[in-house]
Amino acid sequence: MNNFVYDIPTKVYFGENQLGHLHEELRKYGKKVLLTYGGGSIKKSGLYELVVDEVKKAGMELFELAGIEPNPRVYSVNAGADICKKENIDVLLAVGGGSVIDCTKFIGAAAFYDGNAWDILTEKTTVEKCLPIIDILTLAATGSEMDSGGVISNPETKDKIGMMYPVMQPKVSFLDPTLTYSVSRYQTACGAADMLNHILEVYFNMNQDLFMLDTVMEGLMRTIIKFAPVALDKPHDYEARANLMWTSSWAINGFVNGGKRQAWSCHPMEHELSALYDITHGLGLAILTPRWLTYCLDETTVSKYYQYGVNVFGIDPTLLPMEVAKMSIDMTAEFLFKTLGLQSTLTEIGIDSSNFELMAKKSVQGGLAYAFKPLNEADVTAIFTACL
Amino acid sequence: MNNFVYDIPTKVYFGENQLGHLHEELRKYGKKVLLTYGGGSIKKSGLYELVVDEVKKAGMELFELAGIEPNPRVYSVNAGADICKKENIDVLLAVGGGSVIDCTKFIGAAAFYDGNAWDILTEKTTVEKCLPIIDILTLAATGSEMDSGGVISNPETKDKIGMMYPVMQPKVSFLDPTLTYSVSRYQTACGAADMLNHILEVYFNMNQDLFMLDTVMEGLMRTIIKFAPVALDKPHDYEARANLMWTSSWAINGFVNGGKRQAWSCHPMEHELSALYDITHGLGLAILTPRWLTYCLDETTVSKYYQYGVNVFGIDPTLLPMEVAKMSIDMTAEFLFKTLGLQSTLTEIGIDSSNFELMAKKSVQGGLAYAFKPLNEADVTAIFTACL
Repeated sequence: MNNFVYDIPTKVYFGENQLGHLHEELRKYGKKVLLTYGGGSIKKSGLYELVVDEVKKAGMELFELAGIEPNPRVYSVNAGADICKKENIDVLLAVGGGSVIDCTKFIGAAAFYDGNAWDILTEKTTVEKCLPIIDILTLAATGSEMDSGGVISNPETKDKIGMMYPVMQPKVSFLDPTLTYSVSRYQTACGAADMLNHILEVYFNMNQDLFMLDTVMEGLMRTIIKFAPVALDKPHDYEARANLMWTSSWAINGFVNGGKRQAWSCHPMEHELSALYDITHGLGLAILTPRWLTYCLDETTVSKYYQYGVNVFGIDPTLLPMEVAKMSIDMTAEFLFKTLGLQSTLTEIGIDSSNFELMAKKSVQGGLAYAFKPLNEADVTAIFTACL
Repeated sequence: MNNFVYDIPTKVYFGENQLGHLHEELRKYGKKVLLTYGGGSIKKSGLYELVVDEVKKAGMELFELAGIEPNPRVYSVNAGADICKKENIDVLLAVGGGSVIDCTKFIGAAAFYDGNAWDILTEKTTVEKCLPIIDILTLAATGSEMDSGGVISNPETKDKIGMMYPVMQPKVSFLDPTLTYSVSRYQTACGAADMLNHILEVYFNMNQDLFMLDTVMEGLMRTIIKFAPVALDKPHDYEARANLMWTSSWAINGFVNGGKRQAWSCHPMEHELSALYDITHGLGLAILTPRWLTYCLDETTVSKYYQYGVNVFGIDPTLLPMEVAKMSIDMTAEFLFKTLGLQSTLTEIGIDSSNFELMAKKSVQGGLAYAFKPLNEADVTAIFTACL
């Protein structure tokens, strides 16, 4: 069992109408706030007005960066960092889903760097300081609201790179489940697939580790499986949206990692897919997950699948382990493609095999040699091929 | 479902030989450190030397307060606060179990108060500042290493009062499971009973709440039930000690409370028992727990017992709910008294009914009218009587 350091200092206001505390939190950090967001949905929903009112109540000066993309681009990071430097911004306020929060983290870091923010992603420079970040989450998926990492795309180089620095951890996150009522059926499904995969990437690990964390992960997965269909059927179901929202944070804030050697598998592969084809991250993960699980199943790993099948899907524990394992993969696929209704193949979303070798080559640079089941370029190509 | 604020900023170093990081953490907080501890066990074990070496490495000046009692007394709080004021202490270093850490929290608070620390417990004054606290945990039980509360006894008034202030939250906690290898069989059992009860006090609640938190609590309880007997049989089993240690923190750090109305039942009763008879907190809780569960079971509460029985003890879900409920209480009692081997009645530990009315009167002042099942003085007396 490995040692670990637990350090998740983000303060979370959870629930409806908690936004009234925003001005109290904002003014702890200075006088000038840069509001970052994506498309215009926060204007349509009225959230923009609420936020502006809170900034006024805090007696602070407001600056804005709108138009942050899904799969956020390094251009947006640079644009935000420029505003921070020019206007001497004190605190960042990200309003949106994982893309906006991820982008804002690197804006906060790049504000202290004289150069292209892409240098941070390519490790030409390191991050020691970051402007304080407060966020208002509008989509339950990536968990960026409670971790110190983010993923940025560079369309010029066709790269999509993830990076974590403790100083980028949000100071305060506002999680109001009602803000996710308007999330579309498709994005709700992609969010559920994303958080399920975050847990599976940690759970499937042959390291000897803390039983108590496995029980937590199994509970989180059961929560996703129970409430994602409810949220799809009744988008305004508070209980479902609340369970999904809090689960998305805990799926990836680092708690469940304790002591496990971390080497994720589907994420490096999916980052290549969405870097090249700009697909939704959760959809890419959904397509990859059952094929990855199938590829990694053998006599040396079957015990983990058995545990998963029995404890998450309630499969009869008296069946043969290999039988339980196969059933658990089938039930995972059924959840992703039937219950969530996500597209199940790369072919369906217009992706063919032409870039598989290139993507495989880049994927393995992410450390796949140390994954749950070590994967080389040929393995990754085989998994991509199984997704056609 | 109620709103809540999640705020648990304690950094935790978990694992063996993590103490080498102590000097890095200590020196962030100043020049003068007050080491607080209980009896001499940390000298016998060699831990004291390690700590002194780390303080030296940090280049800090060391002061000491030894002899903090189990069920720590207000005298120790005052003695510690006096040292802090006289020597201008910058940071407190608590080495021990819940009693030492609890006491140290109030020392840190009382360092900013000119008067008897008991005024803090009786709410004659409030706590707005506290010296920074770092701790090294040597007993898995109370969870004080990751929360902002503590309980202090006053032998003069025969009171035992608990209080929470966010500023008393430890900055850094060192959790090394090997430091609990030497914990006696009896104290290991009391610790397991304590953490199990912490979860039950939150879990048994008819509030509509987050399913995901119930799954987490069920996992933590299964962890205690699985690993406490292992630790009793093999005190040096790292996996068992590690699971119990991390579970004890998460049982009561506030995470599982999210959105639940909090009104604990057994704790106010047990505090009266240990205030008057100075028994081990976990033992008092063990004796009370099954009687409290029995007393609160009726048609309006049976659904929660059913959930507990099925998900924690694996009782057949097709049985009648009331049958499952009764079996779950029996299995709880069996765990506490047979598996853990704790004494099962007040009579066995020399406590008779002579103070039940007085204790019942004081217990209900703790807010029992709003508990899982509201309890008045007659109810509490009945529960005490069932413990004879």
